[in-house]
Amino acid sequence: MMNKPNVAIMGATGAVGAELLELLEERNFPLNSLKLLASARSAGKKINFRGEDITVEELTHDCFEGVDIVLASAGGSLSKEYAPSAVKAGAVVVDNTSHYRMDPEVPLVVPEINPEDIKWNKGIIANPNCSTILMVLALWPLHKKFGVKRTVCSTYQAASGAGALAMQELEQETAAKLQGEDFENTVINQPYAFNLFPHNSPMKENGYVEEELKMMNETSKIFHEDSKVTATCVRVPIMRAHSESLNIEFDNAYTIEEAYEVLRSAPGVEVFENREENLWATPLDVSGKDPVYVGRLRRDVTLDNGLELWLVGDQVRKGAALNAVQIAELLLEG
Amino acid sequence: MMNKPNVAIMGATGAVGAELLELLEERNFPLNSLKLLASARSAGKKINFRGEDITVEELTHDCFEGVDIVLASAGGSLSKEYAPSAVKAGAVVVDNTSHYRMDPEVPLVVPEINPEDIKWNKGIIANPNCSTILMVLALWPLHKKFGVKRTVCSTYQAASGAGALAMQELEQETAAKLQGEDFENTVINQPYAFNLFPHNSPMKENGYVEEELKMMNETSKIFHEDSKVTATCVRVPIMRAHSESLNIEFDNAYTIEEAYEVLRSAPGVEVFENREENLWATPLDVSGKDPVYVGRLRRDVTLDNGLELWLVGDQVRKGAALNAVQIAELLLEG
Repeated sequence: MMNKPNVAIMGATGAVGAELLELLEERNFPLNSLKLLASARSAGKKINFRGEDITVEELTHDCFEGVDIVLASAGGSLSKEYAPSAVKAGAVVVDNTSHYRMDPEVPLVVPEINPEDIKWNKGIIANPNCSTILMVLALWPLHKKFGVKRTVCSTYQAASGAGALAMQELEQETAAKLQGEDFENTVINQPYAFNLFPHNSPMKENGYVEEELKMMNETSKIFHEDSKVTATCVRVPIMRAHSESLNIEFDNAYTIEEAYEVLRSAPGVEVFENREENLWATPLDVSGKDPVYVGRLRRDVTLDNGLELWLVGDQVRKGAALNAVQIAELLLEG
Repeated sequence: MMNKPNVAIMGATGAVGAELLELLEERNFPLNSLKLLASARSAGKKINFRGEDITVEELTHDCFEGVDIVLASAGGSLSKEYAPSAVKAGAVVVDNTSHYRMDPEVPLVVPEINPEDIKWNKGIIANPNCSTILMVLALWPLHKKFGVKRTVCSTYQAASGAGALAMQELEQETAAKLQGEDFENTVINQPYAFNLFPHNSPMKENGYVEEELKMMNETSKIFHEDSKVTATCVRVPIMRAHSESLNIEFDNAYTIEEAYEVLRSAPGVEVFENREENLWATPLDVSGKDPVYVGRLRRDVTLDNGLELWLVGDQVRKGAALNAVQIAELLLEG
């Protein structure tokens, strides 16, 4: 991989696309050129990057000529259709959609956990689900130290996970509700203002929804072992950061102080708490921030080696765009 | 207890007080007289009940003369101070605050579960915490059938749990936020509009907050056995219904169909789900409704006898006022 690659962003006009642009700029990502790709509808639009306007181009099968890295965030069906063309053109695709994540030919990477998996890529590297990334950043260092036997997770997921339009709709619907006006939801399929609902991804035969199965299955793939995770995913009327309540059972004895120590020195993780005033990380605190924030560590009184933990991270950032950019940075080093 | 008692409501002007009035009216509760008690600040205010205006009286130690049943919902310190005076005057106090709940001299009652405990009251009967009531209504019938070994609960609690002023503040703060205006929180001690936070009740030495310990300890008292419950309580920007994600481990083997059957025939519980369209109970669906609604039953893939369950109930209604009125109804029967 060259030092200054030609990069393309697929889905440049979406919520994650915007964040990818911001991160490339902020992290001073070395670039020879940057191509912005979107649907025909958005083609021609201009987006400012490092002080220059870049014209959005239409995503086609021929548009990857000369591109070294594709950051793909335009939806699973478009990744399925276009990633092979990008690979054929010689690019490595960092795919932020769910399409290739469980493909045994495709590594699934969180740079703080399994950066070595990047090496066996065959042109596509998958970025895990947002809720998975946030959870495993805290789970992995604890697992290495104490052995995680089982994890029960309940999520509090923001509108951003459903895209920029869902965020807009939540704002508009809330404004309407406060005015006592009717509102017809078109992005989210049920009332969302001052409401919450079990995650609306498709439900499988076993009763879990896809979002939950992603957290459960992707964790095993990232950890290279059969991880026991069960999840309940819930969408809450929050703009862009996801929260998670984790109940973790360890194989081995531990102390709360040791668990704090492990998390304090874990890459990508920050302990965020103000115990004196009983204040802990909230979505508004961490929106726009890089790390996943943890706190409220306490011994589960119902188990010998149980830990309760609160976790909040920016879904658009480390949960999506940042992890993808970190993978791209590893590609440059590799 | 006479057939048509003289009833007094302590805290008649609060959120639960208003719901108590509505329920007495709606359930055609037999009354000889109704006294509305509140602080000096609210005394003199008129509240309509069954077509008549009742003047709110000031809560004093002498105001319970001739009262048979007091429905107390004015806060723990006022219950502590005034309940003994009410008992001395011959009344039975149904206390909706936390003050007497764990007192071994005071029964803690959910009428669907342990109505017999009313019989040994010495003048005070405690109404459990709202999150506890909602949880145990589903847990108890499952426990009787399959033996509940351990429960992990994460809550999604509405503003109503913090009172009518918190609900108003959430509305005002959300309106301000949508206008891009600054807002100073005075009821809730942190930003709440489009935000959520771990429950702000006082934190104990072991790291659990009081709200969580209530769910854990009260369950054991209501079930008359040592129940293993661990909870994480979270306040979400919802108006008045609480949701709970429950992960339950049974002693015995079960099938999902049997679990549904148990819950379908459980008093106070309704199965609410539309599996075809992937729609489940939400706070807006159940606000103002009596039952606790359950759904999304699925086998926890990480345990032999594990069950995942989604639960939503109106915090002000069954979580507080309705349970208290049901206790009063049992007193009339008894």
